[in-house]
Amino acid sequence: LQTAEYPSTLFKETSKFVKIKPVRDLKLSNAPDYISSPNSKLHALLWPGSLQNVLVTKKPWSCATKDAMITFINHLHTTYPEINVILQPDVAEEVYQDFLTTANNDPNRPHMLYSGTTDEITSKADLLVTLGGDGTILHGVSMFKSQVPPVLAFSLGTLGFLLPFDFKEHKEIFNKVLNSRAKCLHRTRLECHVIKKNDGESSVIHAMNDIFLHRGSSPHLTNLDIFVDGEFLTRTIADGVVFSSPTGSTAYSLSAGGSIVSPLIPSILLTPICPRSLSFRPLILPHSSHIKIRVCSKMNEKTGNNSVNISVDGVAQNDLEVGDEIHIVNEVGTIYIDGTQVPPSKKLADETLPNSTSKQRAGIYCIAKSENDWIKGINDLLGFNSGFRFTRRKQDN
Amino acid sequence: LQTAEYPSTLFKETSKFVKIKPVRDLKLSNAPDYISSPNSKLHALLWPGSLQNVLVTKKPWSCATKDAMITFINHLHTTYPEINVILQPDVAEEVYQDFLTTANNDPNRPHMLYSGTTDEITSKADLLVTLGGDGTILHGVSMFKSQVPPVLAFSLGTLGFLLPFDFKEHKEIFNKVLNSRAKCLHRTRLECHVIKKNDGESSVIHAMNDIFLHRGSSPHLTNLDIFVDGEFLTRTIADGVVFSSPTGSTAYSLSAGGSIVSPLIPSILLTPICPRSLSFRPLILPHSSHIKIRVCSKMNEKTGNNSVNISVDGVAQNDLEVGDEIHIVNEVGTIYIDGTQVPPSKKLADETLPNSTSKQRAGIYCIAKSENDWIKGINDLLGFNSGFRFTRRKQDN
Amino acid sequence: LQTAEYPSTLFKETSKFVKIKPVRDLKLSNAPDYISSPNSKLHALLWPGSLQNVLVTKKPWSCATKDAMITFINHLHTTYPEINVILQPDVAEEVYQDFLTTANNDPNRPHMLYSGTTDEITSKADLLVTLGGDGTILHGVSMFKSQVPPVLAFSLGTLGFLLPFDFKEHKEIFNKVLNSRAKCLHRTRLECHVIKKNDGESSVIHAMNDIFLHRGSSPHLTNLDIFVDGEFLTRTIADGVVFSSPTGSTAYSLSAGGSIVSPLIPSILLTPICPRSLSFRPLILPHSSHIKIRVCSKMNEKTGNNSVNISVDGVAQNDLEVGDEIHIVNEVGTIYIDGTQVPPSKKLADETLPNSTSKQRAGIYCIAKSENDWIKGINDLLGFNSGFRFTRRKQDN
Amino acid sequence: LQTAEYPSTLFKETSKFVKIKPVRDLKLSNAPDYISSPNSKLHALLWPGSLQNVLVTKKPWSCATKDAMITFINHLHTTYPEINVILQPDVAEEVYQDFLTTANNDPNRPHMLYSGTTDEITSKADLLVTLGGDGTILHGVSMFKSQVPPVLAFSLGTLGFLLPFDFKEHKEIFNKVLNSRAKCLHRTRLECHVIKKNDGESSVIHAMNDIFLHRGSSPHLTNLDIFVDGEFLTRTIADGVVFSSPTGSTAYSLSAGGSIVSPLIPSILLTPICPRSLSFRPLILPHSSHIKIRVCSKMNEKTGNNSVNISVDGVAQNDLEVGDEIHIVNEVGTIYIDGTQVPPSKKLADETLPNSTSKQRAGIYCIAKSENDWIKGINDLLGFNSGFRFTRRKQDN
Ligand SMILES: NC(=O)C1=CN([C@@H]2O[C@H](COP(=O)(O)OP(=O)(O)OC[C@H]3O[C@@H](n4cnc5c(N)ncnc54)[C@H](O)[C@@H]3O)[C@@H](O)[C@H]2O)C=CC1
Ligand SMILES: NC(=O)C1=CN([C@@H]2O[C@H](COP(=O)(O)OP(=O)(O)OC[C@H]3O[C@@H](n4cnc5c(N)ncnc54)[C@H](O)[C@@H]3O)[C@@H](O)[C@H]2O)C=CC1
Ligand SMILES: NC(=O)C1=CN([C@@H]2O[C@H](COP(=O)(O)OP(=O)(O)OC[C@H]3O[C@@H](n4cnc5c(N)ncnc54)[C@H](O)[C@@H]3O)[C@@H](O)[C@H]2O)C=CC1
Ligand SMILES: NC(=O)C1=CN([C@@H]2O[C@H](COP(=O)(O)OP(=O)(O)OC[C@H]3O[C@@H](n4cnc5c(N)ncnc54)[C@H](O)[C@@H]3O)[C@@H](O)[C@H]2O)C=CC1
Repeated sequence: LQTAEYPSTLFKETSKFVKIKPVRDLKLSNAPDYISSPNSKLHALLWPGSLQNVLVTKKPWSCATKDAMITFINHLHTTYPEINVILQPDVAEEVYQDFLTTANNDPNRPHMLYSGTTDEITSKADLLVTLGGDGTILHGVSMFKSQVPPVLAFSLGTLGFLLPFDFKEHKEIFNKVLNSRAKCLHRTRLECHVIKKNDGESSVIHAMNDIFLHRGSSPHLTNLDIFVDGEFLTRTIADGVVFSSPTGSTAYSLSAGGSIVSPLIPSILLTPICPRSLSFRPLILPHSSHIKIRVCSKMNEKTGNNSVNISVDGVAQNDLEVGDEIHIVNEVGTIYIDGTQVPPSKKLADETLPNSTSKQRAGIYCIAKSENDWIKGINDLLGFNSGFRFTRRKQDN
Repeated sequence: LQTAEYPSTLFKETSKFVKIKPVRDLKLSNAPDYISSPNSKLHALLWPGSLQNVLVTKKPWSCATKDAMITFINHLHTTYPEINVILQPDVAEEVYQDFLTTANNDPNRPHMLYSGTTDEITSKADLLVTLGGDGTILHGVSMFKSQVPPVLAFSLGTLGFLLPFDFKEHKEIFNKVLNSRAKCLHRTRLECHVIKKNDGESSVIHAMNDIFLHRGSSPHLTNLDIFVDGEFLTRTIADGVVFSSPTGSTAYSLSAGGSIVSPLIPSILLTPICPRSLSFRPLILPHSSHIKIRVCSKMNEKTGNNSVNISVDGVAQNDLEVGDEIHIVNEVGTIYIDGTQVPPSKKLADETLPNSTSKQRAGIYCIAKSENDWIKGINDLLGFNSGFRFTRRKQDN
Repeated sequence: LQTAEYPSTLFKETSKFVKIKPVRDLKLSNAPDYISSPNSKLHALLWPGSLQNVLVTKKPWSCATKDAMITFINHLHTTYPEINVILQPDVAEEVYQDFLTTANNDPNRPHMLYSGTTDEITSKADLLVTLGGDGTILHGVSMFKSQVPPVLAFSLGTLGFLLPFDFKEHKEIFNKVLNSRAKCLHRTRLECHVIKKNDGESSVIHAMNDIFLHRGSSPHLTNLDIFVDGEFLTRTIADGVVFSSPTGSTAYSLSAGGSIVSPLIPSILLTPICPRSLSFRPLILPHSSHIKIRVCSKMNEKTGNNSVNISVDGVAQNDLEVGDEIHIVNEVGTIYIDGTQVPPSKKLADETLPNSTSKQRAGIYCIAKSENDWIKGINDLLGFNSGFRFTRRKQDN
Repeated sequence: LQTAEYPSTLFKETSKFVKIKPVRDLKLSNAPDYISSPNSKLHALLWPGSLQNVLVTKKPWSCATKDAMITFINHLHTTYPEINVILQPDVAEEVYQDFLTTANNDPNRPHMLYSGTTDEITSKADLLVTLGGDGTILHGVSMFKSQVPPVLAFSLGTLGFLLPFDFKEHKEIFNKVLNSRAKCLHRTRLECHVIKKNDGESSVIHAMNDIFLHRGSSPHLTNLDIFVDGEFLTRTIADGVVFSSPTGSTAYSLSAGGSIVSPLIPSILLTPICPRSLSFRPLILPHSSHIKIRVCSKMNEKTGNNSVNISVDGVAQNDLEVGDEIHIVNEVGTIYIDGTQVPPSKKLADETLPNSTSKQRAGIYCIAKSENDWIKGINDLLGFNSGFRFTRRKQDN
């Protein structure tokens, strides 16, 4: 999925106005500290060194986001010449073309853009800036295999639930971030381990929102056995099931009937999708749970198609077959009751030990506008508890 | 509500077979340690000193529970003569009568029962044993103003969701508890502060399950303004609203459409009861939230009744009137963002400071049967995700 | 509840500008014909004779409605001198005072107002006009024991779901009604028969919206056995249960989780209120069903209060006790499968036979604005399927 | 989908024990009368002529159903030699093989089986007998383009919601049917008209359960505009939407959160599947509604896949593209308010006029066991309102 490699021409084209340079020349990324305080649910973002390398991503195929990106890079280059701007190769090329023709260019101060493979990029970025919708954050964050830098997300045109800032505010908020005057909301991610029956290999994917299994285009129900901490929980006969982080509680889980869960509550949501049962109420499981799902054969399906769709943060993965297993844990720390755990080989080398509940940097620190962005979001964006038009509805009495 | 005082005759009647003695003669209660381990979600219960004073409560007006109580006390007196049995005054009298006539009594070893005021009783009990239904735990626990001893709950006849043990197991499990071989599930409670408009006083009540506000017998909808952390959340026009601990997620909140939340997730559930809105989805708020509810005047109600029912763990409290306020926090630690908090005078003197997130002994430690009592409970007792009869439903494929 | 009698002074006060006269002097009411057509879901309202007596009701204690009423009566008296205006006694007195002091009065054409007992009033009214909210229709209609005249309902200030017309349109629409150019939506009502255990008597009440049984202020759940067509359907352990007409599907039933049912579908909705069950899905029963509910004793309630609240269209009735029965049918025709039926004595004398499915005049004909008032209502008033703010939502693509 | 044609060898193979003959040699089908009565919700099934041609269908690839079919045909041939047994070609061949080897065969009375094209078969069948699950009825009925003969459905092994009879009862109930002593439940179907944007042609399919549109394997939400009677109802942004008959209210619609609707209530259910809205409550529309759905382009999908899955009674149809339209009506009679209607060419020639509400034979008459099969079904098969294990639940008090 991730086309790690860039076209061989990437660093070849040169102009006196703009240059693309290898990101590997930059210094390694520089992690900030996150300081909590007794009167705040947020964490102060503090740069012990200094913020140097900024990765900017955008929603693809959108004019609005390209214009904003040009504006944003111009602002950085003009106001903070010491900051390095990193772009993904395709974005770098797109932006390169634009800077060639932009009016007020100065050959004495050409625009420097840094790019390279995904691994190179993610090892250098101190800050992730996203321009677009919720999907742009999901995609930006998914580039990072382990630790994710702080995320500064702007909405452009259409609003988004995960986007606290309007692009109009970019100068002011970037200045705050640079000067360690910003605050972060800590969001935890899920880890999804896929273990194919006929395959020694297994793979790990992180989900900011959710992992869902679904019948897809097959008109036949999925049959999934779900185990929690080694104990059989239930057999799901349904369109499918969503496992969601609290962040994802306002995404697919909400559409499927789940509750709205504050991102501050570390937990794993299990929400069925159209179950053949009257009594399948959504569950909120502890973040420390170890969940295993086994794909069973469909009913009434002797000959046919038994494969099950799986998507992580809305990105389709390879279909699952009968006997395949998914293991889901929250990255902030699992308690493996029976000692057995997701095999260590299955965990990424650079991740901390599973049973330590205090992984200092697991999760994503998202720069927040206020303590209660979430309350504003569910009211203003989701239309939570909208009154009927004919019922009085004012705050005062 | 709590008739703290006992009849003056309580300690007067004496028989050679059974005696009721003042509980105040016993030593002060002896708190156990609760030890967590990396491979368990439960806490090992460890008596640094020794378990001496056992408070036994029962469901009122039930023959079954009286017989069980006699059996249980007999077992303690016979097998563990060093253990003191504490009973509430009315239960003590009821049991007293029974021991007078029980067959194999021994005048050399009369039954000793300890009793006294609620305050005296709760200051002495090392362990709370309940015999009855879920209501018996709720009631037993509500006797304790601040710290609650570990709870050993038996079901009798009818099962209960909070009752891991069948009374048949009482000998075995009591022995385990005594010998520090039992494990506990930690449940957190809500604190409800009632602030009457025309009343300097305010009062605090703890809820193991929930606090609910309701229109009661008035056919008119309640209007309640809800604030979280000082921010206006929503106006509720509804039958009412339930604020529930995760423990209470399977009680009223479930009936009102809430999700099932593991007791291991510290949080506060906000579930509307029959709201006049299509979009009032249940919310799961962080345990650190400070929730304020203000009673507003009802619509279309110029002259009439504006009072709102309030119940804590199913026990009706005095009605609320327009302008009255309720503050709800989780006892495990609130983050008061704006510094303003539930006024200290409103907190019980013996409780720890509100902003400390590590109140060591807040909450209730309930002796558990296994790591996954909760999964068994939702499957076996609530019938979670029951399949349709005509769909195959076996664990294996 | 209905204070049928008027104060003895009602017809005594006389002024040259306004007079209150006995309604019994008017001619008996004059029923219109309702004509259906193949291209309409509505019924054309046709006066074979002429519309003469108009009953106008209003929301009590509201200035806005009194002003509108004066305006409306003035309009009728000025433009249609042959039309008689009927008012309930208390409204007549209220309006009387106003006409005494109104500016442009003409002693040659004093305002005539007709009033009398409820029975007298309802036997004379050709048309019911309501000014106020949904409750004003519910209340106006409830005055009529059997056949209800066509209803013309205006909203004033606050909108209402059952109110197609804004008061601003009153001249135009009244003219249409008078000239047989209006169309009606046919709404069916439920009949509720209350049979008290210790009481030979039984009583019948009609419900335009719904009948609900509820625990009220008792914190204990109701236990209700529900039978359909003589067959046991289910035992409800819950706050209560609502039986609703399709008209009432947007009232309490909606708040309790029921579906939105078009008023054109004759049926009876059974919606539980906070049931202790994961699998109590709302049911839509055929209009021909004969439903019986029996009040059972509450659980855990040896001594106490077992009474159950019952309300019809939001008006509280006398509480029910263990053993009392409610029978509910839709007035448009029940099929009594086993021959046994609600005893004939229990039916009002002037009603048609129960098994005839073609009761010509059962139900309420409400003057409608368009074929699709209902679609407008659920969108504009209830906010049906409101999109999230950040999702594009235009009709076109 | 329907392989109308049979293999050329079908009638060639001959044995002295069993013969397959062309179904076209039989007399045309013989429709029964359905008589309603004032004390029943069912219709008495009366053969004015006599029942002669019985079409027997079965669940494919199932041993259990083949054995039952052999048993059933043997019973018919032995007990009712005048009855002709009709089978679909592939079933005929399967059964043929079995009769060759069955023990007690009699060359003097060879087994006669009739078969042919689907059109030939459906024009001759007086009665449809199905052996299998709910899917077997759905499939059997879907063979009939217009009028469907009465359906006698047996469950085998696994139960089904639409299957009143256990196969053990086949002798008794068949005898009742033959002798006009059976009763039928009348179920209405939906008609689905597919109008492809780039295609003059349109097609009609009947649905006993439901028609659903779904995103299928695309992870992106569908955008569908829904119109009722020419009026814009809503834009659905969701996984999809189900339009269901009352019969289908216990199928997909139930899983998606819909109410349970008695099959006696002619109506069309609109139930969203995982909508991106908090306020999309399921709707019950009048049976007379004319519903139009237009496929819109997906959000955020400039380049990609915009196709939408459509299934009728669980059978996948050709995908829909942006601009395609679906029209849905209930076959018992639509009121086309604005005169415009599903173009006549789009209706099957042999169907009655759309605006006549009294299509005598529309819908499916299903032989029923009792007046209240439905109540038994929702209790015994769906586990409706299952009590919690710890709540007393007996019918008596
Ligand atoms: N029926 C449904 O509701 C479905 C929802 N999804 C969700 O879409 C997500 C992927 O998002 P995109 O790539 O933008 O796909 P997308 O372009 O299909 O849009 C999904 C919608 O969900 C919104 N969204 C995403 N994350 C959210 C969150 N945490 N809270 C509130 N709204 C959120 C987006 O703004 C967008 O409106 C998946 O993680 C899954 O949760 C996926 C399939 C079906
Ligand atoms: N419609 C409803 O569901 C209502 C529920 N309640 C609940 O009743 C509770 C008080 O319980 P009781 O004194 O026993 O009253 P009760 O005797 O009226 O019984 C309530 C029922 O809830 C069960 N229950 C109690 N706590 C539970 C829990 N945490 N999880 C699962 N089931 C539980 C009990 O076993 C009993 O069956 C309140 O805290 C409130 O949550 C109160 C009123 C209405
Ligand atoms: N939690 C709830 O939703 C409750 C609802 N009710 C409903 O209130 C009705 C009585 O109404 P009021 O006398 O006005 O009482 P009310 O003054 O308490 O107001 C009830 C609200 O329901 C609205 N309403 C009434 N009938 C409606 C309908 N058919 N469709 C949509 N909205 C409707 C009214 O406009 C008003 O906003 C009862 O028939 C019952 O259905 C009664 C108690 C609780
Ligand atoms: N998530 C879900 O619930 C889904 C349900 N379906 C339903 O499956 C139906 C097709 O059925 P099959 O061919 O048997 O497919 P299938 O073999 O996939 O089984 C669907 C299940 O639904 C049951 N069912 C079918 N009609 C029913 C009814 N009217 N009431 C209650 N249960 C019923 C069947 O017995 C079976 O258990 C479709 O009409 C659709 O309603 C289709 C896709 C997903």
